[in-house]
Amino acid sequence: MPRVVTSFGNDTVKLIRSLRDRKARRESGLFLAEGLRILAEARDSGVLPDIIAFAPAGAAHPLAAQIIAATEAAGGDAIETSPDILSKMSGKDNPGLVLGAYRQPPTELAAIDRSVAPLWIVAQALRDPGNIGTILRTGDATGAGGLILIDDCADPYSVEAVRASMGAVFTQWIAIARWEEFVPWLRAGPGQLVGTSLRTETDYLDATYEQPCFLLIGNESQGLPAHYEAECDLLVKMPMLGRADSLNAAVAAAVMAFQVRASWRT
Amino acid sequence: MPRVVTSFGNDTVKLIRSLRDRKARRESGLFLAEGLRILAEARDSGVLPDIIAFAPAGAAHPLAAQIIAATEAAGGDAIETSPDILSKMSGKDNPGLVLGAYRQPPTELAAIDRSVAPLWIVAQALRDPGNIGTILRTGDATGAGGLILIDDCADPYSVEAVRASMGAVFTQWIAIARWEEFVPWLRAGPGQLVGTSLRTETDYLDATYEQPCFLLIGNESQGLPAHYEAECDLLVKMPMLGRADSLNAAVAAAVMAFQVRASWRT
Repeated sequence: MPRVVTSFGNDTVKLIRSLRDRKARRESGLFLAEGLRILAEARDSGVLPDIIAFAPAGAAHPLAAQIIAATEAAGGDAIETSPDILSKMSGKDNPGLVLGAYRQPPTELAAIDRSVAPLWIVAQALRDPGNIGTILRTGDATGAGGLILIDDCADPYSVEAVRASMGAVFTQWIAIARWEEFVPWLRAGPGQLVGTSLRTETDYLDATYEQPCFLLIGNESQGLPAHYEAECDLLVKMPMLGRADSLNAAVAAAVMAFQVRASWRT
Repeated sequence: MPRVVTSFGNDTVKLIRSLRDRKARRESGLFLAEGLRILAEARDSGVLPDIIAFAPAGAAHPLAAQIIAATEAAGGDAIETSPDILSKMSGKDNPGLVLGAYRQPPTELAAIDRSVAPLWIVAQALRDPGNIGTILRTGDATGAGGLILIDDCADPYSVEAVRASMGAVFTQWIAIARWEEFVPWLRAGPGQLVGTSLRTETDYLDATYEQPCFLLIGNESQGLPAHYEAECDLLVKMPMLGRADSLNAAVAAAVMAFQVRASWRT
């Protein structure tokens, strides 16, 4: 049976609230996801929260009731609370009627089995958690295996990233590594490292993409450092027809990922 | 000569600060752009601010000095102030050393000359100003003429949209219209209206795109209403290989815009 919690000072309420903070996420190993749609995505991907919190109206929805019951059956904690306290926990005015605190999976590169997917996205020093979530969502849509975050990226388990991922945080592998670890790992197996660059004549539509393809996306403001470009097996250029010489990082990742898939279509 | 302003209570400082608010933007007809890079994009596109504000270190940069001088020569107002007041005006901790208040161009559909570009992006009820800015930036990169905002979209002249546009707010036409105005305007001239849908068998890679092509992008959470889809001359499907059935709106716009351009490549 769910516990009923009516106090802002309750320890579980405080724990969930704290998950908007990176340090608290690191210490607890948990992260926050909000809304029935994303919790249902998680459940359908075989993932249940450690803690589920809901307003009474939330539990009235049959799908929510199923997830609450499954969470309890798996030994998780279910708390019924007020919409007010739910808002407080999520930091959002209208967080939906249910939210979950999930355990972060391991993010070691060694946990990734590159043979499970023909495409992987690698992002370098992305600062915007919304971009990270959007790239996860694009990865899901293009059948990527996951996202490898290089150097100091925003936290993929932040509320903003999880929200922008629209559930893909539960379907994509996520690894976090330094460049110096990533390169030896990459070279220890098959894989074509593909970067986008202004310093190449190869149009992205004319290139040959191999499997597994590792798409390397540069930082929002600087793009890829030169020695990262030098490590690439293939550099391609996306045509820029206007005044600007770059795209939003999540847009560049998506156009490339869709083109790589298109090039493999038989 | 620039005026020196040292007070938070100065009327110009208050005016610029107010531009983070949609009502104040509407009343004044101005909008805010921050940072030398975007101000230089504007200048290179032939647009100067009505008011330019800068910290002393900002004026030391030769490009900033040029834009400040050009603004004054064109009858604009130049104010030198402190980094503190500059931050206050932009609402950003580190706004760069220069910002400008620009006049909003007219947003009537009638102002658009569709013959100037083969591609136009049409967005319906987009709620996220970051998405609008990102779509403007993508429009610039793909040689689109501009962005037509249908129904209740976020403000393209909000600080967030301008920032995400990376200067494309100055290179792309922006129109704001109701669907009921847009359709007669569209049908009064040449143009293929293209929507993305789950309810079609036509893959986006196999379709024939005509010029001018009007790419219709649906709202972030609902997608296109059925009667908007029914108005389209062409519906295409983007393959979704994972669990999710939709993409981020700015990502969908970009993948489609790049594919339309790719299909025209000879």
